[in-house]
Amino acid sequence: MTERTRRRERPKHFDHTSSRQPPGLRGGRYRPLDDADVARIHDASLSVLERTGVRIVASECRDILAAAGATVDAANDRVYIPRRLVEAALRAANRNVTLHSRDGRFDLDLRSRRVHLGTGGAAVLVLDLESGRARESTLRDLYDIGRLVDTLDNTHFYLRPVVARDVDSDLIDVNTFYAALAGTTKHVMGGCYFPSKVAELKRLAVTIAGDEETFLARPFMSLNLCYSVSPLRFAEETTETLTAAVRAGFPVALVSAPLAGATAPASLVGTLVQVMAETLAGLTYVQLLRPGHPLLMGNLPLVADLRSGNMVGGNAELALMNAAAAQICQSYELPIYNSCGLTESKIPDAQAGFEKGLTVAVTALAGCEFNHHASGMLESMLCVAYEQYVIDDDINGTAMRLVRGIEVTEEALSLDVIDEVCRGEGHYLGHPQTLELMNREYYYPHTADRRTRQDWEKDGSPDMRELARRRARAVLRDHFPPGFAPEVDARLRESFPIALLPAVMRPGSYP
Amino acid sequence: MTERTRRRERPKHFDHTSSRQPPGLRGGRYRPLDDADVARIHDASLSVLERTGVRIVASECRDILAAAGATVDAANDRVYIPRRLVEAALRAANRNVTLHSRDGRFDLDLRSRRVHLGTGGAAVLVLDLESGRARESTLRDLYDIGRLVDTLDNTHFYLRPVVARDVDSDLIDVNTFYAALAGTTKHVMGGCYFPSKVAELKRLAVTIAGDEETFLARPFMSLNLCYSVSPLRFAEETTETLTAAVRAGFPVALVSAPLAGATAPASLVGTLVQVMAETLAGLTYVQLLRPGHPLLMGNLPLVADLRSGNMVGGNAELALMNAAAAQICQSYELPIYNSCGLTESKIPDAQAGFEKGLTVAVTALAGCEFNHHASGMLESMLCVAYEQYVIDDDINGTAMRLVRGIEVTEEALSLDVIDEVCRGEGHYLGHPQTLELMNREYYYPHTADRRTRQDWEKDGSPDMRELARRRARAVLRDHFPPGFAPEVDARLRESFPIALLPAVMRPGSYP
Repeated sequence: MTERTRRRERPKHFDHTSSRQPPGLRGGRYRPLDDADVARIHDASLSVLERTGVRIVASECRDILAAAGATVDAANDRVYIPRRLVEAALRAANRNVTLHSRDGRFDLDLRSRRVHLGTGGAAVLVLDLESGRARESTLRDLYDIGRLVDTLDNTHFYLRPVVARDVDSDLIDVNTFYAALAGTTKHVMGGCYFPSKVAELKRLAVTIAGDEETFLARPFMSLNLCYSVSPLRFAEETTETLTAAVRAGFPVALVSAPLAGATAPASLVGTLVQVMAETLAGLTYVQLLRPGHPLLMGNLPLVADLRSGNMVGGNAELALMNAAAAQICQSYELPIYNSCGLTESKIPDAQAGFEKGLTVAVTALAGCEFNHHASGMLESMLCVAYEQYVIDDDINGTAMRLVRGIEVTEEALSLDVIDEVCRGEGHYLGHPQTLELMNREYYYPHTADRRTRQDWEKDGSPDMRELARRRARAVLRDHFPPGFAPEVDARLRESFPIALLPAVMRPGSYP
Repeated sequence: MTERTRRRERPKHFDHTSSRQPPGLRGGRYRPLDDADVARIHDASLSVLERTGVRIVASECRDILAAAGATVDAANDRVYIPRRLVEAALRAANRNVTLHSRDGRFDLDLRSRRVHLGTGGAAVLVLDLESGRARESTLRDLYDIGRLVDTLDNTHFYLRPVVARDVDSDLIDVNTFYAALAGTTKHVMGGCYFPSKVAELKRLAVTIAGDEETFLARPFMSLNLCYSVSPLRFAEETTETLTAAVRAGFPVALVSAPLAGATAPASLVGTLVQVMAETLAGLTYVQLLRPGHPLLMGNLPLVADLRSGNMVGGNAELALMNAAAAQICQSYELPIYNSCGLTESKIPDAQAGFEKGLTVAVTALAGCEFNHHASGMLESMLCVAYEQYVIDDDINGTAMRLVRGIEVTEEALSLDVIDEVCRGEGHYLGHPQTLELMNREYYYPHTADRRTRQDWEKDGSPDMRELARRRARAVLRDHFPPGFAPEVDARLRESFPIALLPAVMRPGSYP
């Protein structure tokens, strides 16, 4: 049988677009720290909470911590949290956190080391898909990026990626969630600017779900709240928002994002100690508020370029710290909310590619459960690009294939196959094992180009950015998910100051 | 003290170009396989050698294996290698391999898990630095790429990257090594097309070294020989070249490069079993020829896109197999020669970036000792680009920073620093620890852009390719290393048919 014949004999219906890897594959084969070092860092962070403490102004939060046994130095607004309090919180914490999608297709089971990759925010610029120029981000971008993410199989959740710069801050929270949820049925996470707005978001969620019980059974919205101002200070207003969010039943990511060398030690492990102290303080508070509340440890150790003092994304140090933070949280069996896929580049070029490929691979292999920033971001956290979401989905798919790893079974070892082929025609292409595995064993990128030079040149020698642009354009033109049922949408528009025009939510609306 | 003051007080001599990571850092924190699976794969590969055997035609090699106890089935040219023979070879193998540089600045200590990244080959196309168009590679490219690599700190060796398409095959081996060695003092590895040419290469090496003893004490040239034709066949002529190379004292990389799904099983672990069987057969032969000869296990498991049957680089499956092969070789304490940094892209774009960033990170973290293809390559193995070498040096530097990992010491944990800062001015930028660590703890890319948008736009919004082009241009214009002493060069030109014109080897020669 010639090779040509063999190829012709392949099943016609073979799925050539096997460009989806299952979400939630278990990582952890990359371990940046020794187990003993994990224990040392944990211990050091508890020492920091006992010895240095956390700055918290007089507040309900401070009262709750004090009532539980923390020591308050009111003159200096310092709260010293004893080790046993943190240990009790760790015992009480929820180890079975799922962030739900609206339709159940993309539920995120965040138990230990199950890897998910998704968008991050909150950028203020978007590269225009046609001109390539940066412009301010708008509410419509939140909807349009949502629609795009809705079609990307290796982008597992939709964290509010941009700030709607065209919406008043008073109206922004509810409009952000409306636009994001209208764009995709995947889980939506976002911020909340004011404590007073939590109730409004809850009403939005309940209106969409039908009733409160339904929403609380499968919360499809969650809040990421940066209650921590590094080093070791609780932000007064965001802590109030956190309190309200927990009471309202929203799953929360307890975000602390210290900048190594600026708002945390320049030593990478020193930053890890501090960020763990910061999130453990938050964890302790939330467990006192509501034991077992679903939360993510939002350890977000970032890096400053110490020549300028500016935050920089997409570097080895950031990847190392995020992977290590994940390993520490794995020792608690608590899910981490962390960062990968950032880049300093302002455009989807080779720099963006390598900084993303490298950092996504590292945190995914480390088994981080909730990797945000893994889609669409450019210029640190300042900018996003539509075509970058498409590119990053291919990067994420490749990284998830890495996470899946190498299956070692008697059958996979292939001793009989090797013997048969070596004694036979000397080629595996037509072997039944090959036909059986060609889909299952391999990831086929949807946008990264594998054509011959000849075919590629015939197509005008497009770079990956151009190929991604073509895909993004087609999605934005054609993909308008149902969003909400008409009666639900009517109720939402009656009850809330929804700014997204129905006119942009249907085919034909996109230029 | 304000932030502005603090910055001014930094030492003036601070090295802002800390864009070099030490070579030979120890990897291995990423382990794609369980230890038990490593043992299973090893065992399976020995089974293959016993049961399926290797195809070797009547030859000195076959006679040597037979004399040592292998069973020869002459009618089918099959040689069955008993387990004890391979195990004896593994015991006899050299675990202390160093590949030398000519000046001692970049010696490659390849003991277990010491990571090195360098160029690979043998491409036939080069992207013209100015037009960006692909053209055939020439002898001068071998010299010019060598000069460029000579200046790139995170590119640790110079494996012949391109084929000199303008040189007759009869003259190509000696000319390739001459051009490469003239361009850089780093270790040079290359092929040898004919068994008869090994002696000529040896004379070249001895002429450069001064005498044979000096060369053998610090061999600065080595040969990568693909003696294995997958599945499980020794190439007659290359095996003769290998025999001659070992007898001449050249360190060798025993290369086997099966294509999963085409010349090896589609199952990743099946390909690992086969490639290990192939290189262990080579190892066994070389130990019989010369016990303890310095060699690298050239496990190069590659991937075919099973939709086309074409080899594809830069994917997760390739990275997984190369990392796993390294882990298996680490169990032997033998250095691996393997592959990372390939891409299917034809240009230095986002695809090239991510495929490189991801695969380099993975094999480096796995502790591969000799990662070739990690610099300059595009379009699988068909093309290279000058600017890509510059880009890849930044990727390699970032990956080496990953390998360096996180230092955990009492001092680095920073408990006192955290306490001091939190009780004091609340900022780490001016802290002595920060000043002390700002160089040591961080990698500063030389080409990846970290400027603000404003500064970047003022510079014409260059992508990384353009920034790399600028750097490559400057190096090619200005950097002409001494090459050989004039009297040595004269001797070389008398003794060998050197085709590289002296005119291209001095300033002013580059357009």
